[in-house]
Amino acid sequence: MPATPAAPRPLRVALLGCGVVGTQVARLLTHDAADLASRAGAPLELVGIAVRDVTAPRDAVIDRALLTDDAESLVDDADIVVEVMGGIEPARALLLRAIAAGAAVVTANKALLAEDGPTLYRAADSAGVDIYFEAAVAGAIPIVRPVRESLAGDDVRRVLGILNGTTNYVLDQMATTGASLEDALAEAQALGFAEADPTADVEGYDAAAKAAILASLAFHTRVSIADVAREGIRSVTAEDVAWAARTGYVIKLLAIADLREDGPGRAPSGVSVRVHPALVPLAHPLANVRGSFNAVFVEAAAAGELMFYGRGAGGAPTASAVLGDVVSAARHRVLGGKGPQESTYAALPILPTGAAITRYQVRVDVEDRHGVLAQVTQVLAEHGVSIEAVRQPTRQEDEVDDAEDGVAHLVLTTHAAPEASLAAMVDAVAALEPVRTVTSVLRVEGA
Amino acid sequence: MPATPAAPRPLRVALLGCGVVGTQVARLLTHDAADLASRAGAPLELVGIAVRDVTAPRDAVIDRALLTDDAESLVDDADIVVEVMGGIEPARALLLRAIAAGAAVVTANKALLAEDGPTLYRAADSAGVDIYFEAAVAGAIPIVRPVRESLAGDDVRRVLGILNGTTNYVLDQMATTGASLEDALAEAQALGFAEADPTADVEGYDAAAKAAILASLAFHTRVSIADVAREGIRSVTAEDVAWAARTGYVIKLLAIADLREDGPGRAPSGVSVRVHPALVPLAHPLANVRGSFNAVFVEAAAAGELMFYGRGAGGAPTASAVLGDVVSAARHRVLGGKGPQESTYAALPILPTGAAITRYQVRVDVEDRHGVLAQVTQVLAEHGVSIEAVRQPTRQEDEVDDAEDGVAHLVLTTHAAPEASLAAMVDAVAALEPVRTVTSVLRVEGA
Repeated sequence: MPATPAAPRPLRVALLGCGVVGTQVARLLTHDAADLASRAGAPLELVGIAVRDVTAPRDAVIDRALLTDDAESLVDDADIVVEVMGGIEPARALLLRAIAAGAAVVTANKALLAEDGPTLYRAADSAGVDIYFEAAVAGAIPIVRPVRESLAGDDVRRVLGILNGTTNYVLDQMATTGASLEDALAEAQALGFAEADPTADVEGYDAAAKAAILASLAFHTRVSIADVAREGIRSVTAEDVAWAARTGYVIKLLAIADLREDGPGRAPSGVSVRVHPALVPLAHPLANVRGSFNAVFVEAAAAGELMFYGRGAGGAPTASAVLGDVVSAARHRVLGGKGPQESTYAALPILPTGAAITRYQVRVDVEDRHGVLAQVTQVLAEHGVSIEAVRQPTRQEDEVDDAEDGVAHLVLTTHAAPEASLAAMVDAVAALEPVRTVTSVLRVEGA
Repeated sequence: MPATPAAPRPLRVALLGCGVVGTQVARLLTHDAADLASRAGAPLELVGIAVRDVTAPRDAVIDRALLTDDAESLVDDADIVVEVMGGIEPARALLLRAIAAGAAVVTANKALLAEDGPTLYRAADSAGVDIYFEAAVAGAIPIVRPVRESLAGDDVRRVLGILNGTTNYVLDQMATTGASLEDALAEAQALGFAEADPTADVEGYDAAAKAAILASLAFHTRVSIADVAREGIRSVTAEDVAWAARTGYVIKLLAIADLREDGPGRAPSGVSVRVHPALVPLAHPLANVRGSFNAVFVEAAAAGELMFYGRGAGGAPTASAVLGDVVSAARHRVLGGKGPQESTYAALPILPTGAAITRYQVRVDVEDRHGVLAQVTQVLAEHGVSIEAVRQPTRQEDEVDDAEDGVAHLVLTTHAAPEASLAAMVDAVAALEPVRTVTSVLRVEGA
């Protein structure tokens, strides 16, 4: 049935929030109105923009007549509600109200979805309306739709993501210029790539929220931010970055979600989701993701390796993702049909942190005498950890340290083992008599 | 409305073709049946596989009882028809028959879609059934759905794709080992990355078909393979590859589709679609696409730069894309709704080859005397072509040539200009008295 009627009635779009993203959503709804109408099957009419302060200064593209501080009335009379205000409340209450009133909702709110997405998904399902959230993960990069729909006939095994542009910029600057974390972060703040309070980015909360959403979609299992083991980049030193380069890696803040599979052909026993700095081999596609770009690397049973790359933040890129969702929701209003619902049929257990399979690179300062390496490797063997490489750098190579007489450095890189075994191994190594200090412990991923 | 009924009736899936891809589609439909049923909302039952010769040897995963040489009867009684036989006929007739009988269709047939897609799209639209074709472009990489749906709220400006794994493998081998095209191609054939008759790959027909499909989606304009300017990799020499590296590039066979925009804020005046070898700067994300991998780089007005990377061919990867489409079509059968239709509202003109905007790198052998460079640069200026760089390599650098006494080499890289002006400029340079030979002309893209 060619279903587009001759003169479809305009769809009423309500916008909640008018920050960097909201401004761009409003601009594109107006500027691209003709194209959007052709693609959606009906004109999209921006009927109001809910803000806290209608008198605050706004970008000139904003039609001030659309501003209102009465968000409730706005959502009650909309076909599609776009939420780009962020935070848990009042965003959640407004989205639930919109859903109850029969509107389709589009949200970019990763914090809300990672904390309490299922409440929204269930409400949308009961009301028979769409809920879309492409912009909540990796900004402009189409990743929610590909994982939910394009890969619906495949089995995702593992997702590795660079999901936070601020920390990627900081780590990339450290790798490029040799700067300390503090200096690189200050530069990022000066350039507007990092906020005045960078905690959410630097401590990995932002990436963890996105990891929870992605893991839920990839593994058809509910994953909330509370399920994500999280470690930020605060402890990454210039020396770590230099050693990474010297051993063929680059340090990235990775979000990792993988299936624990106990053997070929056996059903997966659980899901591990974590965010932490990791050594990524220079030849891995993620190693080339520079500056504030984001990327998501997906390993699927049939598709093999896939990567999705682009801008993970910013007004216009995020608005692109929001508007793609608005067009999908609008098409359903015009032509019938409904977008994907929450899929949790697999309901896999979330594994404890210690069960994650990873690899470690450990740098230790040891007494410079015979037999030390034998002692260290003995400890690894006792913990069931096998060694991929041991490096004992010469004094000359050891350029980033103030080398002390009688002290040698070891750089151990392990094969894959459970996190719990690796951590216990590091404790045991640290307790060895000839070991002065464990200088650094970093996980190796993507190898 | 939670629409999944308690015990939904199985959906009947007919498979047309049982080659490398068809075998994997059949395997996954069986092996992943439980997961697919959960995701689709109903069991997917493979009811038959149409083949030319039911007695031919088949992979052990194929249930021979499903094989039939009566494709017509098979499609008449299916809910979803999957076509992975390739070629124009009988694929087209069978798909039209399936559509007329009310089946949703999923096809991986790039040649058919690039030649006569609109006939199929119109038929599906009239019959009110889905037609999906993610697997027709770049194999496992989700690119059709992202461009049609995720970017529906944005404006795509340019698509650069490595859409043929065989030629990417060959060019990558040449870059890595210094091999000639003939040797690299022979190796690719020995390893199964290239077919015995590699014409479709090497001459760019395969990439051109995919470029036509992508350009249609990106620009909401009908583009057929006849609209694509095409040049294969036959003429790429080991010397070209070595010079590319020396000047900071790598040679890739690119599919390029871009909008001609005559000024900011002005409506686009046309679309240019072409496939040819091109110099890609080493820092460009496409330069790192190695081996037989594919990638699609998209520039959109709001999203900025995006890249999609993965396996562009092979049985299991292509089957992953096919099954994602099967699940989408199945969900519409169960829950109602319909996938995207052909979108051609923009109906932009296809520009002639000469109107494409590109850059050239030209290598010329000239008499080694004063004033030659001035003559050459004068010719460029006369053709409205400005120079980005001129290199006059020293004898020592010029290692890949049998340098002749009295002959100097020039490597000219231009700024962007219309193809027609660039081509005329090369003819004029060739006609200069002190110019011995134009050794190589390659376009530069992605800079």
